[in-house]
Amino acid sequence: MQPPIQCPGFLAAGVAAGIKKKEGALDLGLIYSQEPDTTVAGMFTRNRVMAAPVVLTKARSATGTARAIMANAGCANCCTGSQGMVHAKRMTAGVAAGLQLAEEQVLVASTGTIGLSLPIDKVQAALPTLMGQLRADGFESFSQAIMTTDTVPKLVQRRGSLEGRSFTVVAVAKGAGMIRPDLATMFCFVCTDAAASADTLQTMLRASVDKSLNRITIDGDTSTNDTVLIMANGVSGARIRTAEHQRVFQAVLDDLLMEVARRLVKDGEGVTKVVEIKVQGAASDVDALKVAETVAHSPLVKTAFFGEDANWGRILGAAGRAGVELDAERIDVFFDAVQMVKAGQGCGQAAEDRVTAVMRRPEFAVTIDLHLGSGAGAMLTCDFSVDYVRINADYRS
Amino acid sequence: MQPPIQCPGFLAAGVAAGIKKKEGALDLGLIYSQEPDTTVAGMFTRNRVMAAPVVLTKARSATGTARAIMANAGCANCCTGSQGMVHAKRMTAGVAAGLQLAEEQVLVASTGTIGLSLPIDKVQAALPTLMGQLRADGFESFSQAIMTTDTVPKLVQRRGSLEGRSFTVVAVAKGAGMIRPDLATMFCFVCTDAAASADTLQTMLRASVDKSLNRITIDGDTSTNDTVLIMANGVSGARIRTAEHQRVFQAVLDDLLMEVARRLVKDGEGVTKVVEIKVQGAASDVDALKVAETVAHSPLVKTAFFGEDANWGRILGAAGRAGVELDAERIDVFFDAVQMVKAGQGCGQAAEDRVTAVMRRPEFAVTIDLHLGSGAGAMLTCDFSVDYVRINADYRS
Repeated sequence: MQPPIQCPGFLAAGVAAGIKKKEGALDLGLIYSQEPDTTVAGMFTRNRVMAAPVVLTKARSATGTARAIMANAGCANCCTGSQGMVHAKRMTAGVAAGLQLAEEQVLVASTGTIGLSLPIDKVQAALPTLMGQLRADGFESFSQAIMTTDTVPKLVQRRGSLEGRSFTVVAVAKGAGMIRPDLATMFCFVCTDAAASADTLQTMLRASVDKSLNRITIDGDTSTNDTVLIMANGVSGARIRTAEHQRVFQAVLDDLLMEVARRLVKDGEGVTKVVEIKVQGAASDVDALKVAETVAHSPLVKTAFFGEDANWGRILGAAGRAGVELDAERIDVFFDAVQMVKAGQGCGQAAEDRVTAVMRRPEFAVTIDLHLGSGAGAMLTCDFSVDYVRINADYRS
Repeated sequence: MQPPIQCPGFLAAGVAAGIKKKEGALDLGLIYSQEPDTTVAGMFTRNRVMAAPVVLTKARSATGTARAIMANAGCANCCTGSQGMVHAKRMTAGVAAGLQLAEEQVLVASTGTIGLSLPIDKVQAALPTLMGQLRADGFESFSQAIMTTDTVPKLVQRRGSLEGRSFTVVAVAKGAGMIRPDLATMFCFVCTDAAASADTLQTMLRASVDKSLNRITIDGDTSTNDTVLIMANGVSGARIRTAEHQRVFQAVLDDLLMEVARRLVKDGEGVTKVVEIKVQGAASDVDALKVAETVAHSPLVKTAFFGEDANWGRILGAAGRAGVELDAERIDVFFDAVQMVKAGQGCGQAAEDRVTAVMRRPEFAVTIDLHLGSGAGAMLTCDFSVDYVRINADYRS
C-alpha cells in the first residue's frame, strides 16, 4: 500500500455537507497552508459566463498570496444572480473566521449544475466539522469531495530537488478540462513546499497548463467554473530564485500536470480510449495545433475511435477543415507505429487490419505528418461513446 | 397521390450500378437539360481536402453553362490520388458521348466513403441503361440513387411566376450539410425552367444557401464533397432580367432551400428532434450568428435536447464561449413561447415543467435574447442521440 499523498505544510479535508443529492457523499473540501508566507497563482475559464466563485477567486489570487482553498461539488453557483457572490463570500468568511485569516486569503471554487442556488445554510453548518478534520493526509478526502461525474479521484504527486533540498508538488483535480460547462467542470489545485514569487508561479503555471490542461478535450465545450490554482509555502527550504531553478521546477510541474491531464481524459464521460493526436510537418506550430484540435474535436473521428474503425478518411476530412494550408496529397497518417495513409492515400487492407489491432488498445497515438514544414503540436482526446450521450442526456434527471 | 415531381425541359434517372454494397440499390443518377442554352451556378465545400469530382465540377461550372449532372453514392472518389481525376473525367466522357455533348458540359458529384477507389468499370457498364432511362418523372429515382445514410429521399418543388409566366424550381438533395466528411456528404441539385444569366444564378444561389444550407448543423463536421448546383433552362419563358424579377425568384428559391435544409436536419443521423436556435438582441448580426452556431454545435446542448432536459445552463455556457461580448445577467432564453431564463437566471420549476413539455415536440425553437443590440441570426440543429454514435461507430463495418 502506498503512503497517503501529502505536501509538507499543507492540511486538507473533505466532508459531506449535503450539497450533492446522494446522502453522505463528500461534497465540501478545504486545503490550508500553515505557512503565513504562501504565494499563489491561478488560471481561470475564459468563458464569458463566469460563476461568482471564479470572479471572487480570480480577484483575490491576483494579490499573489493566499492561505486556503475551499471547494464544493454538487452546485456550480453560476447564473445565480447577485446572490451568487453573497454566497461565495459567505463561504470564505466562515473559513476565515475559523482559521483566523483575512477573508481575502481564502479562495473558493464551486462545481456542479449551473443555475442552482447554493444551499448556503448547509455549507455554513458543515464548516466547523470541515476545519476540525484538517489533516496532513486529508488530500484523499478533499479529492473525493470535488468529484462530479468523475469515477475516480485524481490525486498526483511529484518530487524534485533544488540545490540539495528536495521539494514536493501535489495536484488534486476533478472533471475533464474544457469540456462540460454544465458540470462546471475542471478544477486543478496544486500545492508545493517549494518557495517562489507569485509572478514566477504564474509564469510556470501558465507554461505547464499550456502543455497539459489546455491540450485536452472530451467534447469541446468549455466551463463557466474552470479553476487552476497553485500555492507555494516554501516549507521545504527549496527556493526558486534563478532561471535554472525555474527550469528544474517547471519540468516537475509539467510532468505533474501532464499526468493530471491524462487522468482527466481517461476518466472522461463514457471514455473507452485515450488518443493522442500528434501533428508534425506543419507550416508552423500554430497550424499544427489547429489541425490537432480540429481532429481531436471531430465527432466523426471520435465515434470511429469508439467503433475501432480505421476510418482515416474522417481524419483527413477533419484536417481539411482546420483552416490551415495543407496539401492532401502529401499527408501521412500513422496509428502508433503503423502507417495507414501515405501521400494522401490509404495503405490497403493489410495496414488497415494492423491499425484495427492498434485501435483496440486503451491508449494509442495518431500521428499526422503534413510534410510542409517543421511545425508540431499535439492534443489529448478520447473516443465518443454511446455512454457519453447517455450520461449527458440523463445528467440532471 | 401526388403527381411525380418534374421540371419542364429536364429529364432524370437513377440506376443500380453496383457501387453500393447492397445489391440492387440505386447508386448512379443523371439529370439532363434538353435545352442547349442552360445556365449553371455552383457552390462547393471549403474543405482543403477536396474530392476529384468537386475539383472538376467547380472548374466546369465556372463557365456558366452545363447540360448534365451525374452523381453517385457509395464512393466519394476522394483521397484517391491522380486516379480520382481520371475516373471523374471518364464518368463524364461516357455521358458526353452518349448524349452528344461536349465533355465540359457534364458535371459530376460523388458521395460515400473517402479513400475508396471508384469501381469505374461498373459505372461505365451502367451508363447505357442510365441514359436509356432518362425521363421527365425520373427525379424520384435520381433522389434515391444519391442516398447514403439518408432514410428518406429529399425531393422538393416550388412554383412562382414572373410577368404572368409561371415557373418551376425543383431541388433534389441528400445528406445533411457541413456534417459528415466521411459520408462526403451534402448534395443539392436545383433545376428551374426559368431563365437567368449564370452570374444572376450565382448571386441568388449564394444568398439562398447562406440562409438555408449554410445555417444547419448535425455534428459540425464539414465534407470533402459538398456540392450545390443550380441549372436554369428557360423553358417556361419566365426570364429573370430585372431586380424585381430577381427578388421574386429569390423568394421562391429561399423557400425551396429552407425546406431542403429542414428535411436534411430532420433526417440527420440518429436525429429525434429538429431545433431552431434563434439569437436576437446581439451587438451585431455576426455576433448573433456566432452565438447561434456555438450553441447549435455544442454536444452538451444537443445531448440535453435528446434527453428532453431543460438544462438551460448548458445553453448559457455555450453562448459564453462563442467569443463575443455578452452580459450573462441580461440574457433571456425561451423554448418556443415559454420563458426559461430571465436576466441570466432560471424561472423556476413551473417554467421548467412547461419547457420539458415543449422539448417533447419533434420540432421547437430556442430563442436567446442577449439584450445588447439589434443583431439577429439563426441556425437549425438537432439533438445528439445514442443512435448518432452507433451509426457513426459502425458506418463502414
